[in-house]
Amino acid sequence: MKKLINNPNNVVDEMIEGYVKAYPQYVKQLSENKRSLVTAKETREGKVGVLIGGGSGHEPAFMGYVGDGMADGVAVGNIFASPPPDPILEVTRTIDKGAGVVYVYGNYAGDVMNFGMAADLADLEYGTKVGMVLVTDDVASAPKEEIEKRRGIAGEFFVTKAAGAAAEKGYDLEDVVRVAKKANDHTRTMGVGLTPCSLPQTGKPSFELEENEMEIGLGHHGEPGIEKGELQPADQVAERLVNDILADMPLEQGEKVAVLVNGLGSTTRMELYIMFRRVEQILTEKGIEIHRSYVGDYSTSLEMGGCSVTLIKLDDELTELVDQPADCPMYVQK
Amino acid sequence: MKKLINNPNNVVDEMIEGYVKAYPQYVKQLSENKRSLVTAKETREGKVGVLIGGGSGHEPAFMGYVGDGMADGVAVGNIFASPPPDPILEVTRTIDKGAGVVYVYGNYAGDVMNFGMAADLADLEYGTKVGMVLVTDDVASAPKEEIEKRRGIAGEFFVTKAAGAAAEKGYDLEDVVRVAKKANDHTRTMGVGLTPCSLPQTGKPSFELEENEMEIGLGHHGEPGIEKGELQPADQVAERLVNDILADMPLEQGEKVAVLVNGLGSTTRMELYIMFRRVEQILTEKGIEIHRSYVGDYSTSLEMGGCSVTLIKLDDELTELVDQPADCPMYVQK
Repeated sequence: MKKLINNPNNVVDEMIEGYVKAYPQYVKQLSENKRSLVTAKETREGKVGVLIGGGSGHEPAFMGYVGDGMADGVAVGNIFASPPPDPILEVTRTIDKGAGVVYVYGNYAGDVMNFGMAADLADLEYGTKVGMVLVTDDVASAPKEEIEKRRGIAGEFFVTKAAGAAAEKGYDLEDVVRVAKKANDHTRTMGVGLTPCSLPQTGKPSFELEENEMEIGLGHHGEPGIEKGELQPADQVAERLVNDILADMPLEQGEKVAVLVNGLGSTTRMELYIMFRRVEQILTEKGIEIHRSYVGDYSTSLEMGGCSVTLIKLDDELTELVDQPADCPMYVQK
Repeated sequence: MKKLINNPNNVVDEMIEGYVKAYPQYVKQLSENKRSLVTAKETREGKVGVLIGGGSGHEPAFMGYVGDGMADGVAVGNIFASPPPDPILEVTRTIDKGAGVVYVYGNYAGDVMNFGMAADLADLEYGTKVGMVLVTDDVASAPKEEIEKRRGIAGEFFVTKAAGAAAEKGYDLEDVVRVAKKANDHTRTMGVGLTPCSLPQTGKPSFELEENEMEIGLGHHGEPGIEKGELQPADQVAERLVNDILADMPLEQGEKVAVLVNGLGSTTRMELYIMFRRVEQILTEKGIEIHRSYVGDYSTSLEMGGCSVTLIKLDDELTELVDQPADCPMYVQK
């Protein structure tokens, strides 16, 4: 696949270099690890630090969410690969302002290992208290009985938002962890893949689908979904995704949600709004109130085609946090 | 090409329906024309109205830019086709609050005809004064001697921003037109196409390029560019685009610009930041100051692959306008 890149081995470093040059008012690189970014404004004393991170290739996740009301820092890995402990540790040290740091990251073996090691080292070397919040919103990745095995995908946006807003409002470490875990417990995502992406180094597609085929539940890195089948009209795809979410997390009439219809990379906004249209109809028919909607590319898989639907069930506390303003290079909310 | 749509003939109406349902706090449909959208908050008395529009398929342009500090209303056409005069006229009537309305639109035959007719009708039927601002930023579309023949592409973002910010600040009709025309005169864009898009109704690619081929200066709707050739590394592509802009609009050391690196639809943010990285280096080497940077999808061509680089030369007045806050569904600036 054609890409606007230079040496394929340098894509992550060159992307970060461009990113930091584009937004000097928002972010800066740390001195020891060029893939460790923190807010340009220093995290204020006494505020809980929020740290995110994971493999690259999901832009705007994760680095696009470093800014006011979201994360204080990010550790960026290779494409689809966890960052090692070192850059995580350097961000931790930088954003710890005496109130501890919360790590929000997706449930992948590499991330679990590296963020875990960084947390241990932060405690040992600097006495920094770290709270851990694993994101597990992908309904398709494991059955409900093994919910702790589920992977994190686009729903991480809402978990980061809850943590970031709570930290900004002055919640302590325990409470930031509590609301972020609640946000994760209240969040479900179902995706559909249409076309693959390719890694810059190999140029080979990450999976194969026939022309006119789609895969329900396809993972963020091309992990197999739960069902391949003929491409359906958007309305039926939306029904399938929403119904799978509601089967997993039932919502009563009168309950309130925020909705995220997320593009995987090469899917047009036109298609995302057509998908959102049917999602809205289904929820409205069931008497479920949409408090706020997000439609666009929030967590991609390079140039993969397809989209995901995420619902977060909102109680009063989560509503207040979702409504908080945010100001990041790739996401601003007034 | 695979698309998440229903009936291909309904994509525009279904997209708009989804869009309005997603952002009821921002936009509403008008009663006579479902493709006429205005801000949910009524335009304030005495403010110049700013009207944008054109074919759909360029999302977030144009409808994503209706909101505070940008446009008051938009008329949405079929894919890659101008809206007829009627929906333009209905928006005009709605956003005219006694100070007149400015139309900002790209220089395409259909748009010139339809926006022109709507302006005449608005004057005849309601006595509304309309100011016209044609966007002509695409360097590749005509030589400098025939600059008035050039098409409008991603640079329309800056022209809309200048008009919207000026109207918000209380400029009168003549002055909003003046600064929007100045913004257009100071703006140049050069694009490169890598892969085609396909219209939902035909499913056929809009043009053909060999694997490993790119087209410099490719138009927004697949219009031929100025040169086809082998795909170059990102740095060389960036150099070519910036040099073509600077040959057309020379910039002296010490001058100031805002930069927009715009994705055409299916190009990843990773690639756009890698492109921006080199654009920044070139400008910095020449002593040109980057006042503000925009990187992402601002004006697409469905799922076309490639990107464009836009520079706007900033004097004090344009700097102030570019820095004004904006709050639209697809673009928020604090």
